[in-house]
Amino acid sequence: MKSATFTDVIMLLHLGRLPSPGERRLLDALLIGMADHGSGAPSCATARLAASGNRSSISSAVAAGILAIGDDHGGAGSNTMALIEASLAAAKADGLTPHQAAARAVDDAIRNKRRLPGLGHRVHTTDPRVKVLFDMARAEGVAGHGITFMEALAAEAGQKIKPLPMNIDGALAAILHDMGFAPPAGRFLFIVGRVAGLTAEVAEEYVREKPMRIKFNVEYDGPPLSSE
Amino acid sequence: MKSATFTDVIMLLHLGRLPSPGERRLLDALLIGMADHGSGAPSCATARLAASGNRSSISSAVAAGILAIGDDHGGAGSNTMALIEASLAAAKADGLTPHQAAARAVDDAIRNKRRLPGLGHRVHTTDPRVKVLFDMARAEGVAGHGITFMEALAAEAGQKIKPLPMNIDGALAAILHDMGFAPPAGRFLFIVGRVAGLTAEVAEEYVREKPMRIKFNVEYDGPPLSSE
Amino acid sequence: MKSATFTDVIMLLHLGRLPSPGERRLLDALLIGMADHGSGAPSCATARLAASGNRSSISSAVAAGILAIGDDHGGAGSNTMALIEASLAAAKADGLTPHQAAARAVDDAIRNKRRLPGLGHRVHTTDPRVKVLFDMARAEGVAGHGITFMEALAAEAGQKIKPLPMNIDGALAAILHDMGFAPPAGRFLFIVGRVAGLTAEVAEEYVREKPMRIKFNVEYDGPPLSSE
Amino acid sequence: MKSATFTDVIMLLHLGRLPSPGERRLLDALLIGMADHGSGAPSCATARLAASGNRSSISSAVAAGILAIGDDHGGAGSNTMALIEASLAAAKADGLTPHQAAARAVDDAIRNKRRLPGLGHRVHTTDPRVKVLFDMARAEGVAGHGITFMEALAAEAGQKIKPLPMNIDGALAAILHDMGFAPPAGRFLFIVGRVAGLTAEVAEEYVREKPMRIKFNVEYDGPPLSSE
Repeated sequence: MKSATFTDVIMLLHLGRLPSPGERRLLDALLIGMADHGSGAPSCATARLAASGNRSSISSAVAAGILAIGDDHGGAGSNTMALIEASLAAAKADGLTPHQAAARAVDDAIRNKRRLPGLGHRVHTTDPRVKVLFDMARAEGVAGHGITFMEALAAEAGQKIKPLPMNIDGALAAILHDMGFAPPAGRFLFIVGRVAGLTAEVAEEYVREKPMRIKFNVEYDGPPLSSE
Repeated sequence: MKSATFTDVIMLLHLGRLPSPGERRLLDALLIGMADHGSGAPSCATARLAASGNRSSISSAVAAGILAIGDDHGGAGSNTMALIEASLAAAKADGLTPHQAAARAVDDAIRNKRRLPGLGHRVHTTDPRVKVLFDMARAEGVAGHGITFMEALAAEAGQKIKPLPMNIDGALAAILHDMGFAPPAGRFLFIVGRVAGLTAEVAEEYVREKPMRIKFNVEYDGPPLSSE
Repeated sequence: MKSATFTDVIMLLHLGRLPSPGERRLLDALLIGMADHGSGAPSCATARLAASGNRSSISSAVAAGILAIGDDHGGAGSNTMALIEASLAAAKADGLTPHQAAARAVDDAIRNKRRLPGLGHRVHTTDPRVKVLFDMARAEGVAGHGITFMEALAAEAGQKIKPLPMNIDGALAAILHDMGFAPPAGRFLFIVGRVAGLTAEVAEEYVREKPMRIKFNVEYDGPPLSSE
Repeated sequence: MKSATFTDVIMLLHLGRLPSPGERRLLDALLIGMADHGSGAPSCATARLAASGNRSSISSAVAAGILAIGDDHGGAGSNTMALIEASLAAAKADGLTPHQAAARAVDDAIRNKRRLPGLGHRVHTTDPRVKVLFDMARAEGVAGHGITFMEALAAEAGQKIKPLPMNIDGALAAILHDMGFAPPAGRFLFIVGRVAGLTAEVAEEYVREKPMRIKFNVEYDGPPLSSE
């Protein structure tokens, strides 16, 4: 308790071992990146909206925010980890390299018309955080087959589909894979990181804002109402 | 199971007895009134927002909507029931009538600068549903001291404070009190009624809308960001 | 508001139309059956356990109970409805009868080693509620292809696999299908019905039980602890 | 992102500033202490129970666990912080020392027959973690009026009421107060710490346990059932 960090214990609880100094630095960086993306993200907005109606219990609003986390929000990391794990396992069984595994994953995606998780972004063309994280992973001795696979995946997809730079979810999936986390951990760690932000959002909502402040404008577009 | 209605069983579970035909009609009317107030209410908007991020589990979005229910949203009924119960009990101990109990409650509110629950409304000057419900309660033989108290409360407050017509929460609180429900039941029944609406809102969200569709525009108003 | 029942409005919100008298009676029976299965069910136990730690907000405990509802608890109805819908649609496209659709579903389940939802039960050999509900559905003119399919499914499975009597989830799935509900409605309606029971369980927990009363005995079975 | 720790960002989000090295070490120790108290605690048991019924969404079970956090579980820290803050503020206004503030708080508790938060424990007579944390706080230069007040409170209560050694909630409340956190932060930080444990509990439940494994034995003690 006296010298370990909270991040150490998060890893201990999930992997049953403490991180190396390099792993600790990377896990800190990943958790910080997950903590908050602004009040407009579904998890943060849901937490604030719940607090707008119910101020009887602090934990209610935080829980509501967490409930907005799923496949479409906060789920891309674990989905990418599942692709990495399955692709590398199948490749290993067939005596293929991580590069060949990535090429096969791209071919499969094209054939089955499936999107590849971890690539592409609505706003950024290239996410600068990816390089920062991968440089850290290499410097700290954490980089392994996960990073190799994801870099090859982005390169192959860029040639065979269209430019699809790796996004932050792809980067964290590669690093968490290389640290030894199983795919669901992508989602569990997102929740751990995001709760730091959600608690701060809810704290601010309680202190600065009035209850029932958030109004939604909704337009009726159903069948015409009867005159009665 | 063959002849009872769902509303009968809601009453049975909460009061340990089946309703009379008149009580059933009133409880149906109250639950219907609680079911849905449009997609803009905090509970509905929270449920839809959670569904926007997480479509892995139907129950998540419904639960998130329920978490928005508290003192400020869906809580006015039980707060009014608590006032009715406490005022009538104190009045009875002192040999006072329900009218005298209401006069004392208004005097107390003035002295302690407290708002009286169940009176006043942001939009309506007079809520037409109050008269409909009270007429039903009288016709069905359900009306008792709760209704007498709330009508006297509105009249006394109108004379001593300002025009404060009874709102729908005041009406349902009076009727639930007269049926024998304890104050927390006001909130429990609101949840039961509202879940009917929340499930329909979430069902529509899944069928008609895309994930991650709801965007919040948030303006930063914190300290200036450092140039770094 | 004056003559409709709460059950009418539940159907109106989900299907956009009011039920016939026969449909109303059946929907009441189904919702009553979903309302409560005793305090030991995961949804009820979760709600009571949450209330044991947190009494600041009534809605928290109810929401926690709802979160226990998913594929394994409360999900069998909608899973069966999905089987009915898909099987009947495919059969119709191929010009087959509901009986033939059921035979094909059983053959598919045997070939793919999949369990058939809506059949079998841990405790009951024959669930007497199934006959009661189907008799009602026939008497009320609601019975359609869903009931025909499920009865044929149980018969075919009994011949080709082993005795697998229809369970209550199979019966309600057949009836909801015949009323026109889509598969997810099986889960939404389970939530609506169960919330009646959850609110009563939480109300009782607050009134009768002390906080922190529920203790779990957990045995450590991890690696030996270090002596430090 | 490259050198800050997750704990730094938790403090930054809640207080708007980074911790000193000493504060970081203390906050790490506090968060670790909150992370997990065994699977039998209400929050952990609720999370596992929800996962037993619903495995469709990882976030559901974590949210259910958080909903068990309230006044009776995880709330003692913030309640103690509120006592410290109010007592020190009133004392300052009256020109009293923290010691005198503590004596007054004990007298008030005796007069109003109220329990003092942060003192006493069901199991431990003296919690050894209190001394460890206070020694750290003093060595790291974090100790202030909060620690002085709580030590005086335990001493005064021991003389005037009965032996009431400080518990872990009292210690963390004193330290968080001395770092500048407002009372609700006691609960927010408990949620942040506990989520690390909850995610690991849920991860283990998914991997090691079967759905619907948790059974509650409930004995009926209501009125006799009718023969019908």
